[in-house]
Amino acid sequence: MEDRFWSGFVKDLQPYVPGEQPREASLVKLNTNENPYGPSPGVLSAIEHAVSEQLRLYPPSGAEQLKTAISRYYGLEESQVFVGNGSDEVLAHTFNGLLRHDRPILFPDITYSFYPVYCGLYGISYEAVPVDDELRVRVADYARVNGGVVLANPNAPTGCLLTLQEIEQLLQANTSSVVVIDEAYIDFGGSSAVTLINQYDNLLVVQTLSKSRSLAGLRVGLAMGNRHLIEALERVKNSFNSYPLDRLAIAGGLAAFADEVYFRKHCALVIASRERLVQGLTGLGFAVIPSAANFVFVSHPDHSGAALTARLREEKILVRHFSQPRIEQYIRITVGSERQIDTLLSVLAEILS
Amino acid sequence: MEDRFWSGFVKDLQPYVPGEQPREASLVKLNTNENPYGPSPGVLSAIEHAVSEQLRLYPPSGAEQLKTAISRYYGLEESQVFVGNGSDEVLAHTFNGLLRHDRPILFPDITYSFYPVYCGLYGISYEAVPVDDELRVRVADYARVNGGVVLANPNAPTGCLLTLQEIEQLLQANTSSVVVIDEAYIDFGGSSAVTLINQYDNLLVVQTLSKSRSLAGLRVGLAMGNRHLIEALERVKNSFNSYPLDRLAIAGGLAAFADEVYFRKHCALVIASRERLVQGLTGLGFAVIPSAANFVFVSHPDHSGAALTARLREEKILVRHFSQPRIEQYIRITVGSERQIDTLLSVLAEILS
Repeated sequence: MEDRFWSGFVKDLQPYVPGEQPREASLVKLNTNENPYGPSPGVLSAIEHAVSEQLRLYPPSGAEQLKTAISRYYGLEESQVFVGNGSDEVLAHTFNGLLRHDRPILFPDITYSFYPVYCGLYGISYEAVPVDDELRVRVADYARVNGGVVLANPNAPTGCLLTLQEIEQLLQANTSSVVVIDEAYIDFGGSSAVTLINQYDNLLVVQTLSKSRSLAGLRVGLAMGNRHLIEALERVKNSFNSYPLDRLAIAGGLAAFADEVYFRKHCALVIASRERLVQGLTGLGFAVIPSAANFVFVSHPDHSGAALTARLREEKILVRHFSQPRIEQYIRITVGSERQIDTLLSVLAEILS
Repeated sequence: MEDRFWSGFVKDLQPYVPGEQPREASLVKLNTNENPYGPSPGVLSAIEHAVSEQLRLYPPSGAEQLKTAISRYYGLEESQVFVGNGSDEVLAHTFNGLLRHDRPILFPDITYSFYPVYCGLYGISYEAVPVDDELRVRVADYARVNGGVVLANPNAPTGCLLTLQEIEQLLQANTSSVVVIDEAYIDFGGSSAVTLINQYDNLLVVQTLSKSRSLAGLRVGLAMGNRHLIEALERVKNSFNSYPLDRLAIAGGLAAFADEVYFRKHCALVIASRERLVQGLTGLGFAVIPSAANFVFVSHPDHSGAALTARLREEKILVRHFSQPRIEQYIRITVGSERQIDTLLSVLAEILS
């Protein structure tokens, strides 16, 4: 038996499949929601400054400077901030440390497809709560006994946004388990639930520097919440890896929160590009789900999602298709640069003509 | 209850406590076995080259280029190599993916103190097998029914080395569970068990770039073994975090395996410094356990380990003391630079006079 040395659960794992990361630079890459703009010049120079013989030394285990910067940025205490090696690691520790209970946890049937993978890894039972016919999350559906609630806001891959009022309704209805709001895309049009942290001790807000701060290649994620929630994450982290953030990631992360002007400007550019992309796609006959993220989720009445994805691949354009009930007809398209949007729209116009 | 939202096991965790990482640069830091020499100039320039707008893009999820470089370096197939965010993460996935069985796993009573922490995190039962009176591992003690065997070689914090013959004896006696050889310090005087991988399908060799390759601040670790063992680690990794190595860590890791001359030269320098340090300590009346690592484990007949550690701290010298039965009398001292060794020896001479 090839797997005779494996721990028993490993055979049943269904690992997450990330979007393709091609080596070919000529592709128009609109499949993994990266930012078309690079990180701020201040970030690059801070990292360059940290490339030195000091790399022989371990990073500070607690990444205290970075936590302090984030806590100041959001008006929190340092004890309310957790950082990790990308928000995927932060989410993994969250599922392990805060969501393993007797009762099943709840998340939407259409959402970030890593959530059920974490459940598999940690033996967590879950119920997938159906989104409505417009693919929207209805928070009232989550007001029932559960072991925890996980909502991406805006949701992925739909881009649908919940308002802060809706999040607060959920928190008022659900006080006895942890509510995780995964805000990977919040800076492209939503209001962060971080303002509710001091009122709700069961709220954990997860964010990433991969999208709005253009640092997918650096791997920095964070969680914010009541200090007792954060303590659970620290305990798990310190039982797993003392130094998850390297010296360069800490330096770059720090600088990313220091350059607010660059951050605001480039979020606004992505939002403007999204609106132009939506107009263009609508003009080509696509149905577009209203998006508050840096991607759009669209379907066309005459072409299947799989066929369109394959045709675009032939034209060297990568988008993401999910072979999953309810969303098989859709494709998810990252908001790229202005030039990438031009290319996409003209190629689509030809395909559809 | 402050921990009412925690998953049940979190309260019982006993997280690992890493050595102090002081901000004060004036300290003589001999407490966490960092290399006194910086990484190779080729590593620094490779990382600098990777600091660009490309950081907006995710790293390649499989870090294929790095795996290829490592497999060529050691004469293995790419499918026999796993990489992670420091060897602590690699070990965590190993405990989870390969060592969770009904039978207890075995490791020495005196060894890397993260091993029992992983057992706590993953609910793994273990038996601590006593080292002998000279603090040496006897491989014959592990030839009994078990769920896996984990040996650091050289061992930490003792520095004691097992020969390749002893490792092979263990592998011949133990064929039905995984044998993990944690070679964090192997390049300072031991022979890697990597040469046995193609003969023993239950052997996993774990290494790190933190010690002999001077990259503790970059967080790169690796495991090598039969491809079926590696597949288990990949399945766990891909259920935890798709992108554990950032773009800069991949670039630096690649370059580290390309500069063999620098690597060999600086390992030799550390080994020579260790011999000088051993002579100096012996001259001061210390009993020194023979070390094949970049640290020495020593005791003094007239002074307790705790007292010596505290006195050295007053003199701005950090060493590591473990409050643990059998080794309470000892201190662990990293082999520092020539100047750090001079300082340490003269301060000790004063303390002991």
